[in-house]
Amino acid sequence: MRICRVAVGDSLVYGVVEGLGPDLDVTETTMIALVDGHPFGEVTPTERILPLAELRVVAPVLPSKIIAVARNYADHAAEMGGTVPTEPVIFLKPSTSVIGPREAITLPWQSEHVDHEAELAVVIGRFCKDVPVDRVADVILGYTCANDVSARDLQKTDGQWGRAKGFDTFCPLGPWIVTDLDLEDAILSCTVDGLQRQSAPLGDMVRSVAELISWISSVMTLLPGDVILTGTPAGVGPITAGQRVTVHIDGIGSLENSVVNRV
Amino acid sequence: MRICRVAVGDSLVYGVVEGLGPDLDVTETTMIALVDGHPFGEVTPTERILPLAELRVVAPVLPSKIIAVARNYADHAAEMGGTVPTEPVIFLKPSTSVIGPREAITLPWQSEHVDHEAELAVVIGRFCKDVPVDRVADVILGYTCANDVSARDLQKTDGQWGRAKGFDTFCPLGPWIVTDLDLEDAILSCTVDGLQRQSAPLGDMVRSVAELISWISSVMTLLPGDVILTGTPAGVGPITAGQRVTVHIDGIGSLENSVVNRV
Repeated sequence: MRICRVAVGDSLVYGVVEGLGPDLDVTETTMIALVDGHPFGEVTPTERILPLAELRVVAPVLPSKIIAVARNYADHAAEMGGTVPTEPVIFLKPSTSVIGPREAITLPWQSEHVDHEAELAVVIGRFCKDVPVDRVADVILGYTCANDVSARDLQKTDGQWGRAKGFDTFCPLGPWIVTDLDLEDAILSCTVDGLQRQSAPLGDMVRSVAELISWISSVMTLLPGDVILTGTPAGVGPITAGQRVTVHIDGIGSLENSVVNRV
Repeated sequence: MRICRVAVGDSLVYGVVEGLGPDLDVTETTMIALVDGHPFGEVTPTERILPLAELRVVAPVLPSKIIAVARNYADHAAEMGGTVPTEPVIFLKPSTSVIGPREAITLPWQSEHVDHEAELAVVIGRFCKDVPVDRVADVILGYTCANDVSARDLQKTDGQWGRAKGFDTFCPLGPWIVTDLDLEDAILSCTVDGLQRQSAPLGDMVRSVAELISWISSVMTLLPGDVILTGTPAGVGPITAGQRVTVHIDGIGSLENSVVNRV
């Protein structure tokens, strides 16, 4: 099931998407069946069916927190001049950094080097704490694409990453939440203006989704809608104003964002 | 004005506190006048006046984000073996780390060294971005006491502080929000079992509240209820199960929490 959040009039509502095109793209025949309320429970489509192409798709969730995992692909750890840590290393991104598909990543004046980082995002479905690895599937609502946009220069000078990864627009999420995904073979990729920058199977993660969420839930309670960013593979690189950056995950689809300078 | 959040029946409601004791403590004659709705706007007390001693005081706000400032007192930077950074360094704490007065700080099994860090917390009152220093007063709702509880061992080994400062219960806030405060001469202090550990005037901050909030708002949009932790002075030290840790700020009052081991 694909759960999408869209603007209908003045409201943001959830719906179930059917009839995507061959590249999991929205076509003229793609429809969304609106659901009542939120998707954290039983999701029952109503009779209100609308053509998705005529609606504005927004970020599929507004998380109470975004927990990101550092260096969870060995090749990216190496390109950053490091190694995979012996335990996961986590940091937080603010909810104000979230944007949806087709919204613009805004380059801040404070940085001269902003990188894309394509990632698989896991959306939590249930209030939980201390989840054993073999029960993690029960607390996951689904998966979406994410871009952990990072001001690489400030990341180095600040030491702590609260600023470098916390600017407004630095967490594109979307286009929708997919409840079933092949976490081994699905390819996570990133293109900038159509040229491939990153590509790796999700199975290249050093620690699996289940291991990460179990570990994180031993530290902090997770709430419905919380988002876990599971790390980026090798190939991160700068983005500049005027470019289009697209994160794609097989089975989910594409999260495309433009890049603009802050005016 | 002192704005307090209390449990009344099954609800959490706001009210205005009057009649505190000489140490800004709750006595039998301390009353709270409940207000309708939230305090981010005009706060008008109703006729519903209750004795505060008979109510459970909860954390005065549930923030969408908590932004903490590192090394903002020179003597604490020195005791940590560092110096004051040339620009502010910020990190985030999750909203799930918030507890209120008299709730227990729970020591996690993952750490063998948990420290208190007494801090002034600023509560944002208005949606804002890029606030000039001379307009910061307009976006502040008020001030409260905070304890930036930190697993010092994990802080060092992890490098990023998402885990070390993000455990459940690691952000006591309270006891209430004070809308006017002497940011120069008010003493911020911390005692453990009645013995003083930290004490410094708020004027010892390297960067003022106005400078910090202007700077942070140039990075990320601030929302009503967001909390800024403004750094801790020298004297941080370990807390262990069975102890009581109290953060006190002149003009605000005392935030007291017990310390327990995780069972």
